[in-house]
Amino acid sequence: MSLLTATEILKFLDKLADLSAAAILPHFRAQLTIENKGHGQFDPVTVADRAAERVIVEAIQQQFPTHAILGEEYGAHAGTASYRWIIDPIDGTRAFVSGVPTWGTLIGLWHGETPLYGMMTQPFIGERFIGSPDGAWWSRGNARAPLHTRQSSSLATASLFATAPEMFEPAFEWPRFQALAARARLTRYGVDCYAYCLLAAGHIDLVVEAGLGLYDVAALIPIVEAAGGIITDWTGQPVRAGGRVIAAATIALHAEALAVLGGA
Amino acid sequence: MSLLTATEILKFLDKLADLSAAAILPHFRAQLTIENKGHGQFDPVTVADRAAERVIVEAIQQQFPTHAILGEEYGAHAGTASYRWIIDPIDGTRAFVSGVPTWGTLIGLWHGETPLYGMMTQPFIGERFIGSPDGAWWSRGNARAPLHTRQSSSLATASLFATAPEMFEPAFEWPRFQALAARARLTRYGVDCYAYCLLAAGHIDLVVEAGLGLYDVAALIPIVEAAGGIITDWTGQPVRAGGRVIAAATIALHAEALAVLGGA
Repeated sequence: MSLLTATEILKFLDKLADLSAAAILPHFRAQLTIENKGHGQFDPVTVADRAAERVIVEAIQQQFPTHAILGEEYGAHAGTASYRWIIDPIDGTRAFVSGVPTWGTLIGLWHGETPLYGMMTQPFIGERFIGSPDGAWWSRGNARAPLHTRQSSSLATASLFATAPEMFEPAFEWPRFQALAARARLTRYGVDCYAYCLLAAGHIDLVVEAGLGLYDVAALIPIVEAAGGIITDWTGQPVRAGGRVIAAATIALHAEALAVLGGA
Repeated sequence: MSLLTATEILKFLDKLADLSAAAILPHFRAQLTIENKGHGQFDPVTVADRAAERVIVEAIQQQFPTHAILGEEYGAHAGTASYRWIIDPIDGTRAFVSGVPTWGTLIGLWHGETPLYGMMTQPFIGERFIGSPDGAWWSRGNARAPLHTRQSSSLATASLFATAPEMFEPAFEWPRFQALAARARLTRYGVDCYAYCLLAAGHIDLVVEAGLGLYDVAALIPIVEAAGGIITDWTGQPVRAGGRVIAAATIALHAEALAVLGGA
C-alpha cells in the first residue's frame, strides 16, 4: 500500500473542515435538544456533534475506504490499512451549548501508533490549527502563520490551562494539579482543545488535563509536537490512549511540571 | 442641556468600537510586555489596554467635552454634564495575554446613576453586543440579531458562569458560590464579560461574580436588562459600584439563586 502524500492529506483535511463546519454551524447558538449520554453527569451530545461526525466519517470512507476510523459518537470502524483517523467532531460540548466559541473539531491521522497529522478547526471564529510532519501552522481565511511554542523560562512564569477543575479525580489528580497551579504564575480553566493550540502558538506554556479520551487528544499531539512542544502522559510516556495528559512549551518546563505532578 | 438621541449615541458607540479595535488588535497574540500593577497578584496590564483607553477617552472628550469619564487605567475625568462614560478597554486581560478571544472592550453610558447604554465588542471575532433603552442586539459584520434571555425553568437546569474560582474571597464568597454551583446543572469558568453577553443571548442562565470594579460591569447592565435579564448585587440591590454581582435570565431564577447566595 502506498503512503499518502502531504499534499493529498492536507487538501483532504481542508475538505473535512469545510464539511464539518457546514454540518455544525447552523446548530451553534441555536436551540438544541441536549441529551444526556453520561451516567449521572451532565455530558451534552448535540445534534451538531452527530451530524458532523457523520459527514466526516462518510467522507473518509469514500476517499480512503481501507482506513480505520475512531469517532467519539459512532465508535470504531476497523480498517485494513495502517492509517487511522481519530475524530472528535465537537471537543468542548459544554462550551458549545453555552455559546462560547472555544470548542473545536478535532481530526487526527495516525499511521499505526504514530500521530502524523492533526487539525483543530473552530469554524465560528474561522480558525484552523494544523500539525504535520512538515510543521505546524494557523490559518484564518487568507491569513496564515507558523506555530511555535514559546521559550518559557520556568514554571514560576508559566501560564497553565485545564478545561475544568472537575475533570480531575479528587484523591490523586486534583491535589497534584493544585500543587502545580500553586507554582505557576497564572491558571485558567475553560477552553478545551483550544488551549493546546494556544500553547502551540506560543501564548501559554502548559496544559495539564485528565480523564481524556483518545479522540480528545489524538489530533492535538501533532499540532503541539510540530510547533516544538512536548506532550505526554503524567509519567512522561507517549499518549496513546487518552487519560492524563501534559503538554508543555519546552522540554525543561515539561520536566519541571512532571516533577510536581509525580510528587507524593 | 439637551438629551442625546439614540441614533447619536449608537453611531458614536460604533465609532468607539472601530477605534478601540484598531488600537487593540495589533497587540493581540503578539509579544507583549506584561507589567504587574497588582499587589502580589498577577494582573496584567498591556500596551493594548492603555492604547485603547487613550483613543476612547480622546474621542469622548472631543465629541462630548462636558461628559464625565471613568476608565480602568486612567481613572476618573470629572464632567459637568449628567452623562458618564464608564470604560474597560480590555475586560479579561488574562484571556487576552493567553490568546483566548473571549476578552471584550466594555463601554457604558450612564445618566446620573441610571445605566442607559452598554456595548461589549470582541474585535478578533468581530462581534458586538449592545444594550439600550430600545432593546438589546448582537451584530457581526452585516448580521444582526435581537438578544433575549431564555426562560430558564430553575436552578437545577441552569448553566452558571464565573470568571475564575480565585475571584471569590475564601471565607464568605467562595462557600456561597460553591453552594450555588452544587445546585446548578453546569458550572463553567473563564469567559469574563462574554458570559453576561451569552446570558443576554439566551445561551446560559446565571453569571455570579465578586470583586468587580464598576468598569467591569457598567456596560453589561444595559445589555442584560434590555435582553430581559436581571442584574443586581448578591443582596438584590442595584449594582452601582461593582463588587458582588449576579445576573440571571429570569426573575424567578434570580430569586432562587439569591436565596442560596444569601444562605448562612
